[in-house]
Amino acid sequence: MANETTLTLVGNLTADPELRFTPAGAALCKFSVASTPRTYDKATNQWKDGEPLFMNCSAWRDLAENIAESLVRGSRVVVTGRLKLNRWTTPEGENRQAFQLDVEDIGASLRYATAQVKKMSRANGASGGGAPAASGEPDPWANGTGGFGGSEEPPF
Amino acid sequence: MANETTLTLVGNLTADPELRFTPAGAALCKFSVASTPRTYDKATNQWKDGEPLFMNCSAWRDLAENIAESLVRGSRVVVTGRLKLNRWTTPEGENRQAFQLDVEDIGASLRYATAQVKKMSRANGASGGGAPAASGEPDPWANGTGGFGGSEEPPF
Amino acid sequence: MANETTLTLVGNLTADPELRFTPAGAALCKFSVASTPRTYDKATNQWKDGEPLFMNCSAWRDLAENIAESLVRGSRVVVTGRLKLNRWTTPEGENRQAFQLDVEDIGASLRYATAQVKKMSRANGASGGGAPAASGEPDPWANGTGGFGGSEEPPF
Amino acid sequence: MANETTLTLVGNLTADPELRFTPAGAALCKFSVASTPRTYDKATNQWKDGEPLFMNCSAWRDLAENIAESLVRGSRVVVTGRLKLNRWTTPEGENRQAFQLDVEDIGASLRYATAQVKKMSRANGASGGGAPAASGEPDPWANGTGGFGGSEEPPF
Repeated sequence: MANETTLTLVGNLTADPELRFTPAGAALCKFSVASTPRTYDKATNQWKDGEPLFMNCSAWRDLAENIAESLVRGSRVVVTGRLKLNRWTTPEGENRQAFQLDVEDIGASLRYATAQVKKMSRANGASGGGAPAASGEPDPWANGTGGFGGSEEPPF
Repeated sequence: MANETTLTLVGNLTADPELRFTPAGAALCKFSVASTPRTYDKATNQWKDGEPLFMNCSAWRDLAENIAESLVRGSRVVVTGRLKLNRWTTPEGENRQAFQLDVEDIGASLRYATAQVKKMSRANGASGGGAPAASGEPDPWANGTGGFGGSEEPPF
Repeated sequence: MANETTLTLVGNLTADPELRFTPAGAALCKFSVASTPRTYDKATNQWKDGEPLFMNCSAWRDLAENIAESLVRGSRVVVTGRLKLNRWTTPEGENRQAFQLDVEDIGASLRYATAQVKKMSRANGASGGGAPAASGEPDPWANGTGGFGGSEEPPF
Repeated sequence: MANETTLTLVGNLTADPELRFTPAGAALCKFSVASTPRTYDKATNQWKDGEPLFMNCSAWRDLAENIAESLVRGSRVVVTGRLKLNRWTTPEGENRQAFQLDVEDIGASLRYATAQVKKMSRANGASGGGAPAASGEPDPWANGTGGFGGSEEPPF
C-alpha cells in the first residue's frame, strides 16, 4: 500500500463493541470512539471540553476478538489505523458517505487505569475460536530482545 | 502549544519500565519501545522483519504509575505523544542529541492479547501514592454517554 | 489545547479553492482534497488505485489568501491540521454530520512539480489586503540559522 | 509494508538541500528540517519558541530533483514520511544511531508564502534529466475529477 491516510485517536468507546462473524468465520468487531479535545480557558484557569469527534472503527480477526473480550462502553483507548471513506446510496436514492477507521492496532489506555495483559494465541481456523493454541509466537519483539545498551546512550 | 510534532508508535517494550519519583513526589516512568516494520517478500510470499526503530519514552504522574503497574519487557503497546530532541554535551565536550517521546497516552495492545482494565483514581498529593481514592472521575467519557444514534447512521 | 486529533493528508484539490471574507475582514479559504491510496497488484505487477478519501478543509487569514493565490483544481498538496466533526440539523429535521480538517499548514507538493516560493508579509488589518508590508518576519527559522554541524554528525 | 512509523513535520530547511546521484543515476536529496514548537506564555500573553526538533530527511528520484530545484535554506515545508533509525559503528568502534525521515511527500508551505507550481514530467532514465517529457501523467487526480457534489453535502 502507498499513500494511505493514517490516523491515531485517543478517546472512549461510546458503546460496547459489537462482534460478528462472516459466513467464512472471520471475526469482525465494530465500535465507535469519542475523542474530546480540551481547551484551556484563561479567564477561569480551567480546562474546558470541546466538541467531541466520533469515529466508527472496524477491526478484524484476532484483534476483533481481543477487543470484544477486553473493552466495554466507556473504555478509554489509543487506536491507530487507516482512515477510509465509505460511500453508498440509500434505498431512497440519496448519496451518503461516512468515514471509518480500519484499525491497525488498539490499546487499552493506561491514563486512568491499569491493565492486566494476557497473551492470546488463537486458532487461525475459520471457526474463529478463542482457544489458546500451541502454535508459534506471532509477535517478534514479544521477548523484549534488543533495545538500547552500551556507553553511547543519552542520559535518558 | 502550537506546531508540535506528534508521533504514534506501535511496538514492544525492550525492558521493564523504570519508575522514579522527583524530590517533589511526581512519578516519572521511562521505557524504550521497539517498533519493527515488516515488508512482504514477493519472492518467498512471506513477511520479513525490517530494521527496528527504538524510541525512548517518558510519562509522568498517574500515567507513569499505571504504566509501571501494567507493562513489562516485551509488552506490546500503542503509544502517542510529542517528539522531542534533547541535546547535551558530554563531560568530554562532545555534543550529543537524542530523540524522546513525551507520552500523551499509551495503551496495552490488543493485537495479540486481551487486557483486564481496572480504573484507577490516584491521590494527587506529592506522595504519589497508588491507593485508589474516592474522589471524582477525571475522564469525561468514562460513562460512554453520547455517540451515534438515530436513523441517519451509515450502514456501518 | 489537549487531546486534539491531528491528521495529515496527501492528495489533490478537487476544485479551485474558494476564498471568502468574514464581515470583520478575516479571510477564510475552503477546499476539498482527494487522497487516493494505491495497492500493488501481485498478479499484474502493477499499482492499482484504491477508493479515494475526500476531506473538506478550512484555512484562515494569511494562509487562506496564500492558498487561494497558489493552488487550483488538481494541485497536489501535503496538508496537516486538526480533524473536527461538525454536526447540524437540516431544515427537514434530519441530523447530519461531516468531518472537516482545520488546516494548520499546507504545502504545494514537490512530488510531480517544482514550486517557485515567494515570501509574503501581508497587512494584518481587516482589509485582508495582499500587499507586502515592511513589517517583521513572522517565521523564526526563515533565515535557516541553527541546524546540524560539527564532527558528531551521523554519516547521513 | 506494515507497521511503519509515519511522521509529519512542519519546519524550515536548515541549509540548502544537497542533491547527489547514485552510480546508477538515481537522484538522492538530503536536507535537515528544524521544527520549532511554540508555547503561549500566560504571564506575558505572548507566544514563546520552544526547543527546536531537527530531523534529517532523504528523498529519491523525481521528488529529490524537484526539492533541489524548489527549496533553499530557510524554506518552510510540510514533510511526511517514514521514520527510520540508522545504526552504525564509528571507525573508533563506538556505536552510534540517528533517526532519519524517508520522505514520502513534501510541500512548500503556504503559511508565509505563495508558490508558483510547475508540473514536471521527468525522463525516467539514469540521466535524471529535468526536461519535461511528453509522456503520461503520473498523478491520477491531477485533473481534479471527482469530489463532492449533489444535495447531500454538508453546509461546508
